[in-house]
Amino acid sequence: MPILVMKFGGTSVATLDRIRRAAKRVGREVAAGYDVIVIVSAMSGKTNELVGWVNETSPFYDAREYDAVVSSGEQVTAGLMALTLQEMEIPARSWQGWQVPLKTSSAHGAARIEEIPTDNVMGRFEAGMRVAVVAGFQGISPEGRITTLGRGGSDTTAVAFAAAFGAERCDIYTDVDGVYTTDPRISPKARKLDRISFEEMLELASLGAKVLQTRSVELAMRYNVRLRVLSSFEDNNAEAGTLVCAEEDIVESKVVAGVAYSRDEAKMTLISVADRPGIAAAIFGPLSEAGVNVDMIVQNISEEGRTDLTFSCPVDQVARAQKALQQAKETGDVNFHDLVADTEVAKVSVVGIGMRSHAGVAAKMFKSLKDENVNIKVITTSEIKISVLIDRKYMELAVQALHDAFELEKAA
Amino acid sequence: MPILVMKFGGTSVATLDRIRRAAKRVGREVAAGYDVIVIVSAMSGKTNELVGWVNETSPFYDAREYDAVVSSGEQVTAGLMALTLQEMEIPARSWQGWQVPLKTSSAHGAARIEEIPTDNVMGRFEAGMRVAVVAGFQGISPEGRITTLGRGGSDTTAVAFAAAFGAERCDIYTDVDGVYTTDPRISPKARKLDRISFEEMLELASLGAKVLQTRSVELAMRYNVRLRVLSSFEDNNAEAGTLVCAEEDIVESKVVAGVAYSRDEAKMTLISVADRPGIAAAIFGPLSEAGVNVDMIVQNISEEGRTDLTFSCPVDQVARAQKALQQAKETGDVNFHDLVADTEVAKVSVVGIGMRSHAGVAAKMFKSLKDENVNIKVITTSEIKISVLIDRKYMELAVQALHDAFELEKAA
Repeated sequence: MPILVMKFGGTSVATLDRIRRAAKRVGREVAAGYDVIVIVSAMSGKTNELVGWVNETSPFYDAREYDAVVSSGEQVTAGLMALTLQEMEIPARSWQGWQVPLKTSSAHGAARIEEIPTDNVMGRFEAGMRVAVVAGFQGISPEGRITTLGRGGSDTTAVAFAAAFGAERCDIYTDVDGVYTTDPRISPKARKLDRISFEEMLELASLGAKVLQTRSVELAMRYNVRLRVLSSFEDNNAEAGTLVCAEEDIVESKVVAGVAYSRDEAKMTLISVADRPGIAAAIFGPLSEAGVNVDMIVQNISEEGRTDLTFSCPVDQVARAQKALQQAKETGDVNFHDLVADTEVAKVSVVGIGMRSHAGVAAKMFKSLKDENVNIKVITTSEIKISVLIDRKYMELAVQALHDAFELEKAA
Repeated sequence: MPILVMKFGGTSVATLDRIRRAAKRVGREVAAGYDVIVIVSAMSGKTNELVGWVNETSPFYDAREYDAVVSSGEQVTAGLMALTLQEMEIPARSWQGWQVPLKTSSAHGAARIEEIPTDNVMGRFEAGMRVAVVAGFQGISPEGRITTLGRGGSDTTAVAFAAAFGAERCDIYTDVDGVYTTDPRISPKARKLDRISFEEMLELASLGAKVLQTRSVELAMRYNVRLRVLSSFEDNNAEAGTLVCAEEDIVESKVVAGVAYSRDEAKMTLISVADRPGIAAAIFGPLSEAGVNVDMIVQNISEEGRTDLTFSCPVDQVARAQKALQQAKETGDVNFHDLVADTEVAKVSVVGIGMRSHAGVAAKMFKSLKDENVNIKVITTSEIKISVLIDRKYMELAVQALHDAFELEKAA
């Protein structure tokens, strides 16, 4: 029988009633002839409670013990989901990560999936079981200890199972009904996309759209897993949600698929840096060691051997960045005149695979912002994305203006 | 290094603060030179919450899924306890049942321990680890699924580890400070025992003293594990609590060690049963199948081929017993004139290994009850126990009178 993977997030299994509703969706797919692998998260709130206990017990905790404690949330949901399915007379059983076994690296707290042997679960499907309920977010290390995959790791678990079992599709049930052209809370004209390419989804995920974990999209792209995002709170027909798929499965596409934003950015400028080979390493090495996530980097034209260098990072990492750069200056590793921080900026991006073949997207974007008197502070581009840093107070205005300019409210 | 097993029950690990207090006790034993195996229960309330979810999901649940859900409570405590010990700079790590592995039968929900390989944990002790924190109450079946040992199974886990590792002692930390001559809530003269024999403890446990699970005492007796019951809420010196040990380790002992009671009993009498071979099996077979726990059984002298037969059982099983016996009567398996239930009785017992060598214990017990005008309805005796069934309203009176008669307030 064809295999379907269905993943239910924390809000979709928050109570016994919601688990029952999720189980009914599973039952419909079983009735439609699928063998189903269900991946479950912890009941919402549970993981936070467990993480809270660990942090209170030990601020610099042993990640192996953290994983042992935190993985228990998914274990509970998996058992309850299997019991609920059995009550509906659907042959089902639960698997914990170590029982599959979902083999991972030893990087506790952020382990990478290495192998998912399929014989154990497939044997049970062949023996008549219809649903395998698997605790998401967790696996087992080569040392035999429980590992977790990091926040949102249940999405990654789901995609990895879909790839390993050659599933027809991987349905991610969540509390939104799909991927939108932009955040509907900012632009009421935001439109749900029926389809989006892996590449675009990856850019949107990394730009802060919280629908899917970046790693799960990467994995889906690598193994060409058809990924569908849909709501567990609405009745869905076969066309519900958003299908994340390969570019060639998108018949008609617009030049720009969506507008993303990231509100809490900061712009840091090093004034008058000595422009010598190795200077970038001397600056960004210490920042990386200090745990600063540098995003955009721009270097001005050098004059008389000195240059200005600007980068962006999350606003809550500014103090850390300043400390790291002052230390580098004191040890003589970097020489700069001044360090200026602008903590009132936001990033706005347009994303679309159509950009590859269409010129003029950047020009249209810049003109649209100019028409609204929004000043652009930094620009970076990739093959399918243009991002700008602007004053935070103009962020909503810019998102709305770009959404209008690229006519995203209209279907392709 | 000598090994000590320390077990902490649910109230002793109910909060992070209490886990810290328990960890300090462990720290003291480590400082005293022991390698310690800590067995933990779930934080109190957690197991009930999980069991409640399972029951609400599925009244006739799959016991394998029940075990997967319910075992998660101990998993959390084990991780938190290991982290707490690490914070105190004591080398520690957690083990779940399947990691040890604690091998059990496949009787989910009430599995029997079959084997505890020691090489895994011993290897870590040899490498410098000082504390192994083990999730109590759980193991792994031959099929690789999580099993649980039944309520109170963490006591049994602790004793089994003490036996497997040849521990010097197994300390059970609980919310009482030891085993008493009787329930202090009934007799203010109740005295804590410094030592009690396995046999006596076993009788007291099976008679309803809730300090230790019966199976854990059986196991301790079989493997001669020195078992100490003590409070996790008081400062204990080396002589604290009650040591449960072999008879020969008790230097001076009284004839009677304690008075036990069981409040909610019922007395059932089958009037005029045909007295023929196999009649007991015909009566007690159906009762056992109906899940009735028959305790005392008395058969009167037969007259003209008919006899009266009396037995006791928990009062909440009376309806079940009546139904089973009526059915047996209707099918012709049993022939009796009438079935009379007295649901207002209680059982009071005196227990002591000294009875073996001292005559007159029964006579003294009966006289003491007669002096208080307490009528005895049923009597049963074993080598070290005499139990009587009396009207429930006299229960407290009887316990106090017997405690006085055998001078249990005085040390041996």
